[in-house]
Formats: sequence, structure tokens, C-alpha cells
Amino acid sequence: MIDLRSDTVTKPTEEMRKAMYEAEVGDDVYGEDPTVNKLEKRAAQMLGKEDALFVTSGTQGNQIAVLTHCQPGNEIILEEESHVFYYEGAGISALAGVQPRTVKGKRGNMTVEAIKAAIRPVDIHMPKTGLIILENTHNRAGGAVYPLEDMKNIYQLAQEKGIPVHIDGARLFNAAVASDVALSEYGRYSDTIQVCLSKGLGAPVGSVIAGSKEFIEEARRWRKMLGGGLRQVGVLAAPGLVALDNMIDRLSHDHKKARVLAEGISTIKGLSVKNNVETNIVVVDISESGKNVGQWTEKLKENGVLAVAFGENLLRFVTHYDVSEEEIQRALSVLNKIAG
Amino acid sequence: MIDLRSDTVTKPTEEMRKAMYEAEVGDDVYGEDPTVNKLEKRAAQMLGKEDALFVTSGTQGNQIAVLTHCQPGNEIILEEESHVFYYEGAGISALAGVQPRTVKGKRGNMTVEAIKAAIRPVDIHMPKTGLIILENTHNRAGGAVYPLEDMKNIYQLAQEKGIPVHIDGARLFNAAVASDVALSEYGRYSDTIQVCLSKGLGAPVGSVIAGSKEFIEEARRWRKMLGGGLRQVGVLAAPGLVALDNMIDRLSHDHKKARVLAEGISTIKGLSVKNNVETNIVVVDISESGKNVGQWTEKLKENGVLAVAFGENLLRFVTHYDVSEEEIQRALSVLNKIAG
Amino acid sequence: MIDLRSDTVTKPTEEMRKAMYEAEVGDDVYGEDPTVNKLEKRAAQMLGKEDALFVTSGTQGNQIAVLTHCQPGNEIILEEESHVFYYEGAGISALAGVQPRTVKGKRGNMTVEAIKAAIRPVDIHMPKTGLIILENTHNRAGGAVYPLEDMKNIYQLAQEKGIPVHIDGARLFNAAVASDVALSEYGRYSDTIQVCLSKGLGAPVGSVIAGSKEFIEEARRWRKMLGGGLRQVGVLAAPGLVALDNMIDRLSHDHKKARVLAEGISTIKGLSVKNNVETNIVVVDISESGKNVGQWTEKLKENGVLAVAFGENLLRFVTHYDVSEEEIQRALSVLNKIAG
Amino acid sequence: MIDLRSDTVTKPTEEMRKAMYEAEVGDDVYGEDPTVNKLEKRAAQMLGKEDALFVTSGTQGNQIAVLTHCQPGNEIILEEESHVFYYEGAGISALAGVQPRTVKGKRGNMTVEAIKAAIRPVDIHMPKTGLIILENTHNRAGGAVYPLEDMKNIYQLAQEKGIPVHIDGARLFNAAVASDVALSEYGRYSDTIQVCLSKGLGAPVGSVIAGSKEFIEEARRWRKMLGGGLRQVGVLAAPGLVALDNMIDRLSHDHKKARVLAEGISTIKGLSVKNNVETNIVVVDISESGKNVGQWTEKLKENGVLAVAFGENLLRFVTHYDVSEEEIQRALSVLNKIAG
Repeated sequence: MIDLRSDTVTKPTEEMRKAMYEAEVGDDVYGEDPTVNKLEKRAAQMLGKEDALFVTSGTQGNQIAVLTHCQPGNEIILEEESHVFYYEGAGISALAGVQPRTVKGKRGNMTVEAIKAAIRPVDIHMPKTGLIILENTHNRAGGAVYPLEDMKNIYQLAQEKGIPVHIDGARLFNAAVASDVALSEYGRYSDTIQVCLSKGLGAPVGSVIAGSKEFIEEARRWRKMLGGGLRQVGVLAAPGLVALDNMIDRLSHDHKKARVLAEGISTIKGLSVKNNVETNIVVVDISESGKNVGQWTEKLKENGVLAVAFGENLLRFVTHYDVSEEEIQRALSVLNKIAG
Repeated sequence: MIDLRSDTVTKPTEEMRKAMYEAEVGDDVYGEDPTVNKLEKRAAQMLGKEDALFVTSGTQGNQIAVLTHCQPGNEIILEEESHVFYYEGAGISALAGVQPRTVKGKRGNMTVEAIKAAIRPVDIHMPKTGLIILENTHNRAGGAVYPLEDMKNIYQLAQEKGIPVHIDGARLFNAAVASDVALSEYGRYSDTIQVCLSKGLGAPVGSVIAGSKEFIEEARRWRKMLGGGLRQVGVLAAPGLVALDNMIDRLSHDHKKARVLAEGISTIKGLSVKNNVETNIVVVDISESGKNVGQWTEKLKENGVLAVAFGENLLRFVTHYDVSEEEIQRALSVLNKIAG
Repeated sequence: MIDLRSDTVTKPTEEMRKAMYEAEVGDDVYGEDPTVNKLEKRAAQMLGKEDALFVTSGTQGNQIAVLTHCQPGNEIILEEESHVFYYEGAGISALAGVQPRTVKGKRGNMTVEAIKAAIRPVDIHMPKTGLIILENTHNRAGGAVYPLEDMKNIYQLAQEKGIPVHIDGARLFNAAVASDVALSEYGRYSDTIQVCLSKGLGAPVGSVIAGSKEFIEEARRWRKMLGGGLRQVGVLAAPGLVALDNMIDRLSHDHKKARVLAEGISTIKGLSVKNNVETNIVVVDISESGKNVGQWTEKLKENGVLAVAFGENLLRFVTHYDVSEEEIQRALSVLNKIAG
Repeated sequence: MIDLRSDTVTKPTEEMRKAMYEAEVGDDVYGEDPTVNKLEKRAAQMLGKEDALFVTSGTQGNQIAVLTHCQPGNEIILEEESHVFYYEGAGISALAGVQPRTVKGKRGNMTVEAIKAAIRPVDIHMPKTGLIILENTHNRAGGAVYPLEDMKNIYQLAQEKGIPVHIDGARLFNAAVASDVALSEYGRYSDTIQVCLSKGLGAPVGSVIAGSKEFIEEARRWRKMLGGGLRQVGVLAAPGLVALDNMIDRLSHDHKKARVLAEGISTIKGLSVKNNVETNIVVVDISESGKNVGQWTEKLKENGVLAVAFGENLLRFVTHYDVSEEEIQRALSVLNKIAG
């Protein structure tokens, strides 16, 4: 199977498995797991933040950020197809009691003007705007990068209004590599950042949130409440460190594979690439193909290729460590064959 | 002062005051207030529902509807400038733990297609769609009426999908009068309805929610928790009954006054009426007037007219029982004078 | 019927009805109801606080206090049969997300030592203690008064620990009259107070919460969210003012009636008065009477007397404005007759 | 260091590390991790339940149980020093909106009568009782076992009342071994069970909740929302399987070590063992020792022994896989030395 459903399907590398096997561990609830401590310190430094916290998933990192930044009855501004709004089961409302105010973005990016218009005035009828969330890269916009200049302008507005900014950076490493921006630059234009170790970087499990010391201390309490305070979790931090050390630069290969895939698809009759392929995601419109999305995923599977339905007429393909350039070519052959 | 800020400013009529004075009362927490019981029965019948419940405000009625229909982690579909989303302090998220999914309406009305597209599929990443809310008339759309035919189609879709429909009918009486629809018709195409007695109908305080017996029983529990279980509240139900008996038909006068006001404004240089004035609300764009909204409300006030800012370049005027045709003419003179 | 179920059954006096009829009103959401403003100012002064807020019930006042003082994940200390824990439908957890830590009191009063032991240390596994609630008089303890000296000591501890204190003073007027303490003294030893106008004072509907200006401003937002932001609610504030002006001193009569009732009951075979009757509540143990609680309430009703079951073997009788000394004697005759 | 603070400090065995290294993995969010699937099936069978779910901690398992069984505004009955109430940061109220009703147990066990008395009648003022939680073994009661007969009686009552029963079985394996009860017996007298793999069984991270298919399906949604839906989490399930296969029977050694420790301590002047040592926990009262708890933990640490303060005058020692019989003897020497 050529699995292009998501970069979450990557399996731990040999080096990661060895790291798990050998990991020096302790009880992290007591703060005594040296490998976790090392990972958190490393991630904080990379992202230009004072401190960081290992969490078990991107969703957990985002939820903790919302719980820590906000009060119930706050409103948060985020893109209308952002992961936090679209794919986190209404957790921000169910757990944190906050109301999302969604803004339609251009390729996943909300303009400063749109954000400004969405900030609430002081009025007893209205919630207080408590947080702005930016997703970089933006999954449903096809791995679109948030330009640093835009983030800078948004952060400036947010600072003026006294509103914190959180980056859902599940694929921030892809953004950094694709746009040649140092990770610490993202730290300059945000209050907190969540990054995933388990997507393009290939770690089996885990994410990190980074922020101020005070923020992380409070976040640690919420993590405990959600059941994310773990014991000898150095066994997950160890492959996470491998991911941070050795797996970031190679993301450029994934991006190249995605471009190759997109170029190939653009020559296939009935298929059109919907997104500007900046990173490792290719979104394909199949509405002119004579088959519906369900038929496409089924036919692909029969032919050894996995992709996901991404809306009524869309397929999503994600390139990653566990799919080779040769497999991309094979996937293109299969697509060609099915398109007829 | 000619107070055109809202129909909520209406003061109880002499008849209502008398009704309060004479109201037969009991302890409504024990279900023993005869006047409340009468009001609830009357309202249920009017709206074509099994049962009804007196609540202290439209906001309380809407919040109770959401709390009763939904579970935390549900998503609800509603218009992006609907009262429940825009003006209820994020209560639906803070109290009920539900996530709003806002849909942009045309004149406040969401199309069946847009609603259909917003209903979530079954997916572990996604919230379950738990409620659809329609606002009729729609305040921020300038008192726009939801056509009964559209409500019917939406209700049919909702029934198919197993999703309840709630009407925020804070000004449903205006809709009924303007479109000559029997109130009970709204009951046919919805599961629950909230109507206000304190806006166009002039009662000092109170709203009613109507629905099935089972729904109202559960709603009664939530009302108690919110602190809306009251004692000798027949003193509020009594003027509420006067409102239902004597104040509905006269809403057509308010609508006429609004049309007169709108026609007058449309002849004033620099001002343009933004909404199609179907009921008692006139929204005026002042962006070509050379003055900003703050200057307008101030100047109006200096000249004895009250209106509210309704966005960056908008003023809202609402006609009601306590403003006469002659006062509308005076308000127009003032507007003319300020426009210069 | 001699209704001794609760002092909530009192009906508005002629003076209150007149006050409603004549009430000067305005739109209180705009802060323009002069009668509400007057009531809030009066209540704040009486209770020795900067500001106050009219709410529709004691439950609403208590819930708003918890919502305003606490964050979700806080723990609050309160007596194990206190109204907030026992009778408010778990609202503190459902709405405010706080966990009650109940302490067994002596006659409803928690000792300083017990409260001290219940305050949580700083520990990531544990909630932060966010509020202490005292109920004065304590309903389920039979209208027991919290001695001012105890309140003082508790407040001193709370101040040291940085924990606010809220008084559920649904029947604080009874406590003040029974123990001859000025109401403003309660304000000195608490951060916020809720008092009911609708129990012994006889107003048809309403309570007031008092506290600092900052607290009341925030409380006002929560009140709006719960649906307690009302319009011409001067019609309720007017009888509330009558209650504050004319109905407090007369509570001593209710207390006397309760003592007469208790003394009479104590001579009836099979019945024993369970509480030390300090105010207007008499709790009677019927376990030696040969009848169960259900039979007692039924028989009493048949004979024109209403009381409530207050646990497996207990009846509660509450004296109030609408029951005369003569009716107390008649109730005693009925009790005697049933006891056989 | 002889670490007797908790059995959570156990480090993964060589066999567990190997299992991690070799684990066959997949994306568990897609349900494709074979090792997780195997673990869940194994755990379900052991506990006599239809299905099971891997979670990252006991806290997460308990929170998910409460979220899945209850509605906001429910009340749950649990022991006043149970882990869910005492050590989970008020999560049940903050996340699930439920109010705990705590019952004082005898050695951590609530009697059927006490539970019965705590179940609420149907009354609009009161929350609905939504869940009963039993902790077996009970941590703060010193690893006390809940006798199966008592569980059976409680479950019968619960069934009659239509209230589900959840077992917080963080140390249920200790209970099973100590009382020679088959694990599946616990499944017969409960609706859901949470067991930890990371305490006495020595796995680095993880717990399992077991219940009906329907329950687990819903629990899966809540797990996702809390951020517990992970990717190649077979790397944690693999040592979890080792724990279930090879580490249960050996718990009897931990129990023996605890008894040896307790017997030794009981001969030391100034120290007394407070609990009946049934499993692997020894609680020691130091109030007659002339030193306070802080001094004890410090002195012990200086001498190479770790224990935790467990209240004002109490120390807790927990035996586990990583502490040998010889180390127990050394710990006793240290205790003797400090006691003087």
C-alpha cells in the first residue's frame, strides 16, 4: 500500500525505536524524566520561548492553549476551516466554554483587517475576544504557509488589543522549511505555539506546546486534568528528540514529492489540483472525472493507493517519510489508470 | 425624548399596570401561580405547541432551548449575525458547551443548501450537529421576515437528519403580522419557539418558550438552575397576558411608522436605508453623510432623538408603541436638520 | 389553608401592589430604570457594600457569585446541606465548572478548623480553593443563625489564604433580627452577599447581590448571560423597596410565631422539635408518631395545613407574614388531632 | 535511592523495552494499530467486558468515564477521599459539569446504606444522580480492598435505581491478587472499569477503560476531544501487553514486601501503621515521633529513602517491582535510625 492519507501514518524509524529502547526515564509527574525535560528544553529553544510542555497530541496541545489563555464566555478568532474549529470535536466549547468566531481566510490565512473586524467591542451583550489562533501550515487549505509578514502584522494588532495569539503549528516545521524561516521567528510573533512531532517528523506520538514560564506552569495543570500527565514518558520523548534533531531538514523532500505528484495529476484528464502546493499536501478536485469521491478512494485502494475524501468533490494526498519518489510515480500511474 | 433605540424601551400600559396590581398569584416554583399557568397555556395554544414556559428574557429562553436540546460537544447551526451568536455573551458555549457553526444568511435567512452543507458527517474528529436556530424576524438584518416556505423546507431537512429546530422569535409577532401568517404555523415547522412579551407587545418583562411536554419539563429544570424559577411571578405574567391579548394586532402600526420613517430618510442627502423595511426596524447607512456614527447618535440625542449605533457606519431605529406618528415626523425633521 | 411550607409563599401586600402599579420604570439593560437603581443603591448601603445588583432569585444570585468569583477547576468550600450544594441542581458544577467540597457543619455552621482543613495545598493534582460560602440563616439546619464572631474568624482565615467569602443570605434578614446584628456587619466579614426579597420580606420576586464595584460589574455580565438582564424591571424593584423599608423589623413576629409553634409541638406525643428554633423554621421529627412523612403531609393537607417533607422522618414548618398567630394555634390543634 | 513514593515510579522492564522496540504499529486514529487493538481486546476479555479503550492515564480513563456516563448537572456519588474527587483537579466539574456528592467510607468503602441515602429523589431543585464510582483498591485508605460482596450489593442497588457504576481500578490488579478474585468478577458488578498498566504492573505509560461496545464508542469520541487519540501508540500498548501477561501474579510479592515493611515499622518507637496493609501501601502516623512530616521526608531522602507526605501527620510508602526485599530491610534500618 502506498499510504498518502496523511503524514500521521509514518512509522517510527529504526533510530527512533532504538531511542525508545534506550531511553533514560523517570516519573514525569514528579518532573523527573530526564528525556522529557531535555525534549521540552530543546523545543522551547527552537521556538524562541521560555518553556515548553510535552503533550500527547496536537489536539491536546491546542485545547490546553485555549483552556490556559481563555475564560469561559470568551470568544476566539480562528479560520473557518482551521483544525481547532473543524476537527477537534467542539472541544473548545465543551471543555473551555469559549465561542469560536470563524473568519473566512484566503488560502487559510485571515487578513489583519478581517481579524480586526471580528474583535468585539466592550458591550455587556457580547463576549470578550480572548484569543486569536493561526494555523500554519493550514491543513484544509492544502498545506498553505502563513507568510511571516502577515503573522507579524496580526501579532502587532493583537498586542495593541491585549489579545494573545496561539499558533496551531501541527505542520509548522513544513512552513519553516518551505519558506526558509527560522522556527524562532514564529516565537517572536506569537504567545504560544503547538508543534507536532508525529506528522512529517515521524515520531510515533506527541506534540509540544511552547510559551512563557507562567503559561506553561498553568498549562501543566490543565494537561493533568485532561489525563496528559504521564509517568515514564521519556519513551515517547526519546523518539521526539530524534524527530527534532534529524527529521526537520528532510521535509523538503516531502515537499518535492508533493510537487511531483501535483504536476503529474495536473496532466490527468478530469482531475485538477486545487491548491498551490507549497508543502506536502495535494488537494485534487475530481468533479470533472465522472466518478465521485467514494468511488475514487475505493478504486485507489483496490490499486494499492490510499487517499482521503476531503469534502464533496475533493481528495487529499499527503507526502511523507514513508513514501518514496518511486511510489509517487506508481501512485500517478494508478491515478492515470483509474481516470481512464 | 423620542426613543427609537429599541422596542424594548416600551413602558407597561395602564392596562398592564392594572393587571399587575390585581394579579392573582401563587408560588410558581410549586406550580401554583394561576396567572402564570394561564399565560403558559395561552402561549402554547397560540404557537401550536403542547406546553410553554415563562422565562425572564429572550436570552434566557434561547439559552434554555440550547441547554435542553443539546449535549456539550454538539455544534449548532445559526446565522452569523443572529442574536444567539452575536448578542448572548457566548452563553451557548459557556453554559451549554456547544460550538456555534455560523452561516452567512441573505437578509438573515440561511438557505436550505447552506444549512445542509453545514451539517456534519459522522466522524470522530467532528462534533455532532445538535440544533438549528432560525431568527424571525432577524434583528441585525433589519427586522427581516423568514418566509414560511423557507422554514418549511429547513424543517423538512432537519427532520430527515434528526436535528431539532428552534426559532428565536423575539420578534415573531412582527413576522406573523407582517406576513399574515398564523402563529401556529410557526409551531408546525419547528420543535421549539421563544417569543418575547417585552418588545413590540410592551410587557415590562418576560418571554415564553413553547415546545413538547417533555421538552418543557426538562426546560423547567434548566430554568431553575439559571435562577429563573420564581415565586409570585403572576405579577409579570399578568401584563404578559394583556400583551398577548391586546398588543399583537397593533404591531402593524409600528410597521407603518417604520415605513414612513424609512421613506423620509431615503430623501435625506447622505443617508440611505440599508434594509428592506418589512417590520419595525430601519437600518440607515450614514457613511456618505460626513459624520460618523458616534457623532450621529450624539447630535440626535441633543435634538431629542435616540438611536443606536449598529456597526461602523450604521444607525438602527426601531418603532414601537411608545412612539407616535407625529414623533416619527419630528424625528425626520431632526435627521434632516443634522444632515444639513 | 394555613400554608407553612415556606416563607416563599407570601403574597405581595397591598402596599407592594400599589408600588408596582405606580413604579417609575425604564430599560434596565440600558441602566435606566430609576426604581431598580434606587433598590440596588439602598441594598448596597444596608449591607455595607459599594454596589449591588438585582437578580430574579436567590439561586441566580448564588450562581452569579460563584461564576464571578471562580474559575472552572476551582473548588469551593460549603456546608454539606447548604442550599447551594443541596438545592441548586448542581448548577455550580454545570454552569461554573467548580467542584464543591462539602464540610459537615454543626447546626449548619462550619468551624474555622474544618474550613482550614478543607483548603487545598498547592499541588498539580488538586483544585485551587476558590471560594467559601456560608449560609445564614441555614435552611436545612432549621433557620440556624451563623454567629457573627464565627463569621469574623472565618473571614480572617479566608483573607490570609486569599480566598473570597460569599454569604448565601436568602434569610439573612432573619439572622440580623434574631441576633440583633446590623446588616452592615455582615458586609464587613464577607466579600459578597446575596439576600432574598421574596421570603420573609414578602416581595413577589427577587434577590440582590452586593459586593465591590468591580465584582458587580462582572456579575452584571454573567447575569445577562443567564437571562437575568431585564427591561422595565422596576415593577419588581418597587415591591422590593417596600420589602426593605417596611418588612424587616416585623420578622421578629415570625420568629415568635415559630417559637409558639415549636413549644406547642413539643407537647404533642410522638412529635419532637429537632432544631433550636432561632428564627422562623421549625423542623419536626415524626419517627415516633406511628405515621410516615407522606401520611403526615397528606393528613395535614386534609385538615387545612400545609408543611413539607424535609427528609425521611422530618417535617418542616415555616412561619411568615401570611400566617397569623391564630392560625398557628389552629395548626397546633390539627397536629394534635392527627397525632391522636 | 530506595523509592517508595509510589508504584508509578517503576521503570519499564527489559522485556517491555524490547516490546516497544519491536512493536508492530499503525495509525490508531484510523483504528489500524494492531498492538493497540490486541491490548484492548485482551483487557476487555480479562475484565469481562465487550470492549476496551487504551488511554494515557488513570485520570484520563476516569474523566472519560464520567464524561460518557453523565450529563452536565448530574451528581455523582463517590468516596470523600477517592482519587477522582481528591486528586483529579476538579476535572469532573470543570470538564463534565457534574457535582460530586462525597460519602465518608470505612477504609475507603462506602456502605450500601450510605450510597442509598445519597441518591437524590426526583425534585426540580436537585441534580439527578448520574453515576456511582468505587475505588478499588482505595489509595488514600492505604490500598484497601473493596470486598466483592459489597460491590455486588452496591451494583444491585444501582441497577434498581438505573444508575451506572464505574470502578476506578487504578490498582484493581492488586485487589484481585490480594483477595483472590478473578478480574472478570469485577466486570460483573460494574458498568465500566479503569485499570492502570503503569503502577504495580510497571508499564511506562497507560491505562485501559472497559465497558459495553456502545460505551466505548462514545468514550472514543471524548478521548479524541481530550487529546488522547494517538497515532503509532502501539509503542505504548506493547509494554502494556507485557504488563498484562507477566506482571499481575507477581503483585503478591509487592504485598509481602509491604507487610514486612509494616511489621518492621510497627516495632519502631513513635511510628504506628495506620492502615490494615492488604496490598502494597503502608500509611504511617508520625505524630508521636517528635518530628513533623516535612522533617521525615527530608531525613529519609538524606538517607536514601523516598516517601511522600500523605496528610498532616502521615507518610505513605508504596512497594513495587523496582524495590527489593533487601531494600525494604535497608529502608527499615533508615527509619529506625531516624526515629532514634
